[in-house]
Amino acid sequence: MSRSPGRKQENHKISRELFVLTYGALVAQLCKEYEKDEDVNACLDRMGYSIGIRLIDDFLARSAVKKCRSYSETADMIAQVAFKMYLGVTPSVSCNSVTGNKFSLILDKNPLVDFVEELPAERASLCYCNLLCGVIRGALEMVHLAAEVSFLQDRLKGDAVTEIGITFLRKPEDRKHRRN
Amino acid sequence: MSRSPGRKQENHKISRELFVLTYGALVAQLCKEYEKDEDVNACLDRMGYSIGIRLIDDFLARSAVKKCRSYSETADMIAQVAFKMYLGVTPSVSCNSVTGNKFSLILDKNPLVDFVEELPAERASLCYCNLLCGVIRGALEMVHLAAEVSFLQDRLKGDAVTEIGITFLRKPEDRKHRRN
Repeated sequence: MSRSPGRKQENHKISRELFVLTYGALVAQLCKEYEKDEDVNACLDRMGYSIGIRLIDDFLARSAVKKCRSYSETADMIAQVAFKMYLGVTPSVSCNSVTGNKFSLILDKNPLVDFVEELPAERASLCYCNLLCGVIRGALEMVHLAAEVSFLQDRLKGDAVTEIGITFLRKPEDRKHRRN
Repeated sequence: MSRSPGRKQENHKISRELFVLTYGALVAQLCKEYEKDEDVNACLDRMGYSIGIRLIDDFLARSAVKKCRSYSETADMIAQVAFKMYLGVTPSVSCNSVTGNKFSLILDKNPLVDFVEELPAERASLCYCNLLCGVIRGALEMVHLAAEVSFLQDRLKGDAVTEIGITFLRKPEDRKHRRN
């Protein structure tokens, strides 16, 4: 009595809603486990890092992008290719420093918080989406780019937009210099 | 120095890889927290249930499906519409009982385990994807269908396919009868 679906069995996309709710369950679980917001944030960042160092292979294989020649190109690549591919949104990018190593990804709408209205008062320091920072940090590390990644603004905390800051820690020139 | 992406800002799909790795991080976290596999399984089922009771509204709104007239139609709907919509795969459906209330969803390939090779020996009783059972159970409950949902076979445990069993607990006739 088996009925075959007669359709293509797989693709690379899934519904965002299931992901968003599953992510919410993960954050809720960590909030049960850790009393301090900072510990939840650190745990989300660590988890994201582990994801990023694995996801980069998938990204490089599927995007077939060329090597970026500058931090600016890398930031654009994260926003326009990686965010689009993995979260279905494209943040805008701004450069925040004259030294050219600090960038912001600005999200008008954060797809991870669709079902979250606001953070509970006792969780005011929670960086709900901190997993994303870890993912970016881990993925960049695997292409030999050390970076600090953190939320600078968060609509969940009443800010006008959600802003992820990326600070690249070494200039390509520095790395070249060290090799010589 | 802001650069606008100039593209549509959102859609309802995200990459499966990010979901699969995030789900893996959730299961790993629960395995750290609970020593017994049964406790991890129960926690995943509870989390899934909470997701299912919220996801059903999204499903009904987006699928615009009509009310199912039989358990068989309901099982087909879960496999061919819900699984397709949320996980991008379509299990085949089989009916397992003459009373017509037991069904199996059979997955040749389980999209949630892409990055999992096998369960560690000390986690032999873990139902890695048990969240899905909870989601189905919760969603069905919200349309007034009580059901037991569990994994009957699992490729992660060496079975040939992954099989989710759904047992509907009351016949529609019973419910009508009770109302009168």
